[in-house]
Amino acid sequence: MTIRAPHARRTLLGSAALALAVLAGPALAQEKPKEHGDGPAAAYEPSMTTLAEIQVEIPGLGPDDPVMTQEEFQRGTEIYFQRCAGCHGVLRKGATGKPLTPDVTRENGFDYIKSFITYGSPAGMPNWGTSGDLTEADVDLMARYVLLDPPQPPEWGMPEMMNSWKVLVKPEDRPKEKMNDIDIENLMSVTLRDAGQIALIDGGTYEIKAVIDTGYAVHISRISASGRYLFVIGRDGLVNMIDLWMESPATVASIKIGIEARSVETSKFEGFEDKLAIAGAYWPPQFVIMDGDTLEPKKIVSTRGMIYDEQVYHPEPRVASILASHYRPEFIVNVKETGKIMFVDYTDLKNLKMTEIEAERFLHDGGFDSTKRYFLVAANARGKIAVVDTKEDKLTALIETGGQTPHPGRGANFTHPVYGPVWSTSHLGDESVALIGTDPEGHPDQAWKIVDSFYALGGGSLFIKTHPNSTHLYVDAPLNPDSEISASVAVFDITAMGGDPNVDPEFTTLPIGEWAGIPEGQPRVVQPEFNKEGTEVWFSVWNAKDKESAIVVVDDKTLELKTVIKDPRLITPTGKFNVLNTRNDVY
Amino acid sequence: MTIRAPHARRTLLGSAALALAVLAGPALAQEKPKEHGDGPAAAYEPSMTTLAEIQVEIPGLGPDDPVMTQEEFQRGTEIYFQRCAGCHGVLRKGATGKPLTPDVTRENGFDYIKSFITYGSPAGMPNWGTSGDLTEADVDLMARYVLLDPPQPPEWGMPEMMNSWKVLVKPEDRPKEKMNDIDIENLMSVTLRDAGQIALIDGGTYEIKAVIDTGYAVHISRISASGRYLFVIGRDGLVNMIDLWMESPATVASIKIGIEARSVETSKFEGFEDKLAIAGAYWPPQFVIMDGDTLEPKKIVSTRGMIYDEQVYHPEPRVASILASHYRPEFIVNVKETGKIMFVDYTDLKNLKMTEIEAERFLHDGGFDSTKRYFLVAANARGKIAVVDTKEDKLTALIETGGQTPHPGRGANFTHPVYGPVWSTSHLGDESVALIGTDPEGHPDQAWKIVDSFYALGGGSLFIKTHPNSTHLYVDAPLNPDSEISASVAVFDITAMGGDPNVDPEFTTLPIGEWAGIPEGQPRVVQPEFNKEGTEVWFSVWNAKDKESAIVVVDDKTLELKTVIKDPRLITPTGKFNVLNTRNDVY
Repeated sequence: MTIRAPHARRTLLGSAALALAVLAGPALAQEKPKEHGDGPAAAYEPSMTTLAEIQVEIPGLGPDDPVMTQEEFQRGTEIYFQRCAGCHGVLRKGATGKPLTPDVTRENGFDYIKSFITYGSPAGMPNWGTSGDLTEADVDLMARYVLLDPPQPPEWGMPEMMNSWKVLVKPEDRPKEKMNDIDIENLMSVTLRDAGQIALIDGGTYEIKAVIDTGYAVHISRISASGRYLFVIGRDGLVNMIDLWMESPATVASIKIGIEARSVETSKFEGFEDKLAIAGAYWPPQFVIMDGDTLEPKKIVSTRGMIYDEQVYHPEPRVASILASHYRPEFIVNVKETGKIMFVDYTDLKNLKMTEIEAERFLHDGGFDSTKRYFLVAANARGKIAVVDTKEDKLTALIETGGQTPHPGRGANFTHPVYGPVWSTSHLGDESVALIGTDPEGHPDQAWKIVDSFYALGGGSLFIKTHPNSTHLYVDAPLNPDSEISASVAVFDITAMGGDPNVDPEFTTLPIGEWAGIPEGQPRVVQPEFNKEGTEVWFSVWNAKDKESAIVVVDDKTLELKTVIKDPRLITPTGKFNVLNTRNDVY
Repeated sequence: MTIRAPHARRTLLGSAALALAVLAGPALAQEKPKEHGDGPAAAYEPSMTTLAEIQVEIPGLGPDDPVMTQEEFQRGTEIYFQRCAGCHGVLRKGATGKPLTPDVTRENGFDYIKSFITYGSPAGMPNWGTSGDLTEADVDLMARYVLLDPPQPPEWGMPEMMNSWKVLVKPEDRPKEKMNDIDIENLMSVTLRDAGQIALIDGGTYEIKAVIDTGYAVHISRISASGRYLFVIGRDGLVNMIDLWMESPATVASIKIGIEARSVETSKFEGFEDKLAIAGAYWPPQFVIMDGDTLEPKKIVSTRGMIYDEQVYHPEPRVASILASHYRPEFIVNVKETGKIMFVDYTDLKNLKMTEIEAERFLHDGGFDSTKRYFLVAANARGKIAVVDTKEDKLTALIETGGQTPHPGRGANFTHPVYGPVWSTSHLGDESVALIGTDPEGHPDQAWKIVDSFYALGGGSLFIKTHPNSTHLYVDAPLNPDSEISASVAVFDITAMGGDPNVDPEFTTLPIGEWAGIPEGQPRVVQPEFNKEGTEVWFSVWNAKDKESAIVVVDDKTLELKTVIKDPRLITPTGKFNVLNTRNDVY
């Protein structure tokens, strides 16, 4: 496939106009370049088309444009997809990261950009050069690449989806009953980020039951209502549907739903259990509803449209998290750049009913309150949590968390001794934990307000977690620049939380990284996840791809180390999803 | 304002690269060019921004590109907007007309295109050259223009709308009661196409009560539920809201809702009378819901998305007709290129509910059945009528009319002696009239089927009409190439229609053009419209802008000439909208 940039008519190769180019970069070594993940160096070999593999042509170049060969432009596009698009957007309009359109980059200039890519910034730009993630030549190339117009990425509609769609085991050829002795409800689906795989680990025996090839950097795992099917989605838009009833659980269907993606979910409302799946893409900005047995794509809905408040057209409103409503036969689709929460009724796809809530820009991740009636989602770059009522399909509240860049994952629900039922989030941008009252009937004064906010270990938190059977609240900090903090976890005793806003609750620090006993590298500890009983908490100890990683299991009652799971196959473990808790939205 | 084409970095003026250009067109005369409408030469002076007035830059030119100066490109854009965009689309992706993107036009080549523009085609391309509508130099220019990439037209979001929005008379400064003695329910709002005006003519006295400046080539008039406010929309997206209670009816508010537009409507459901207005744009592809008192824009919804059947992204799904539901607080929005009918619930704009019906591509115009429960709309280029149930918000049927390019306007409802209640359409592409059964309860065998199809005067019909108090069905043929046919109207006696499909009903031919007694030009007769009692039918006798036009009024009982309305102000009259019939969807 060829992406043709608008009006791209020539490359610089062999063109006399080239002589006019002002920014000559060094010739690039021609050996096969190393591949990289967001974390340590990666060796992912994509099995299907990604933006990086599609041949692109250089947009028309003017006399002031930097020199770039076709090969360099191709490689720049590949690196941009792997490293930059997640924050800056495929069209480079900016989101979590700043815009990188040529009007901006040319104002800054080549030298500034090269230095910025090399050293990063305290505001969140990684130090791609000094970290060794990009070579000096690649940094030079990328500084030239972003001075040019971005190539127009291809659409990915029904023809492309159908081409990518595979049913590996037809429904009629699948087992009629569970063919293994796995305690499915206690299975953990663990993302092996840079390996492009997931591991299925038994939550009782800690045994790895299967390692399954998937898309690149699986973002989440979701479980069908019956608990039988596991859905995962890679950043490259590849969805795998895994049958947990098979003797050895394996992929029975797969489809690529876009060029870049983050979210997958399945229908959960009564009468629609296991019937449908949905996946959302970053590019093209769209979601697709699929058959729950085969992943056959049925309905694609574009999210391109107006930003909710300014009502200005946005060409790239990316689909962030998607959840299945428990109150209606609906999916809840969160659209990032336009700030809209869409309730998508899946009962009649030919006459599709949707409700589009004006919420807040930069919607990201979130979860239900303990009753599952209300959905709380972070508008991360706006420092807010939007609350919608999934029974009434309306916006309930918009709450400033008081912290920087809330990042709840699905959040953590517990009953605060003073304030009653709360949902909580930690923050990427600071060390605060914010609690929001979620009980408008029993605690109307606290409902949809920040009832307390206190400090945990430090900034750079990604996930917070508890369980109905636990009295502990766990807060990670994997992106904290201090390696001791990023390898530790804070634990709060919920029963000891008080009502004085001037007194922060104390916390225990668990040295999870130390407990893992990994000699090399600087592993980060990420994402607490409970087993099905809510008695043990699992943490990923996420090291470089070529170094040992581990999963550390902690006894929730005693906060003591229970076990360390190590295996050569556990490459870059990140997210973990317990089947029962994920299926029932228990968090 | 400047439209910058993607990657447009230079014009040909003063560039050495120009020497390489291969297609050199003749120098254009520099005098102010004549303006043209779709029909005869026009002198419309737009009061607000249109695409034609926005400065555009030439997309980057390669060595194989035709020579075109900045001035020529600007003029080409202007002509394209006035003449070509309606059928071929602003992005030139094609719709009623063929695609005109450079991959297509360059395949055909300059000479072929020039000849095609000059002589037209039997498939519907007008003969712009031989008709004299375009000079030879303009034809040459346009043949070069369409070889180049189209300029990216600008967005028109909330900032642009707010800038264009004017409240000329505030609600509190408007009369509290009707200040004139006009029989408002019998007023006719008549489009004076090339004058950029409407005339308000008394349906009883034939007196012109007001001539009001509006946008270019007003496409339709709509009446608020109370009957007080008249809304008109020009092709240039300008909406005028006219207060019929003022001593002399005049515009009290206006807004430009896009670059090119066709539709406006007001809320009619109980409790929402006069509360909201809506307008739909061709470019940008979107609709906007506005305050019914002031036209303040409240909510813009983009229609960009997937084509209903192929599920491939379309960048320009234009909003065709819009109607207000009588069964729900909803607008019915017809989206042309993606083939979707959208029910837009207007009760809560912040939590917007929509139902999107997969119907058929190239939706255009249509109307309700006699019960107002079902809406029938032509998918013109597909030769079909889509029927939706506005009570259940579902697709009811898709019906092939058997004719070419159905063009019903709002259609005509009557009770057929044999088949019961039917809705009818004539066709642009042939002489047939098709009747569709609309009574699923009383006539289930006939419901949503073509119950009869018969010949009228000839192809090129735009409108068909009857009235509950009439037993006549009128069918025009203004676009028929035969000047006698295009100046006449066929009238069928409904009571004489039989049940034998092999026997076509006979019709009477009314020589409306002849009755108008216009000495010069070749006027076309267009759009029958009844007065409020359903006793008289009005026809526009639409001549060139610099020639005399007229409105001919016929007695419906006797089919005899009642009167001819002539006035120097009646320049290029086309559509006429009786207040009562339009308000109540009687047709």
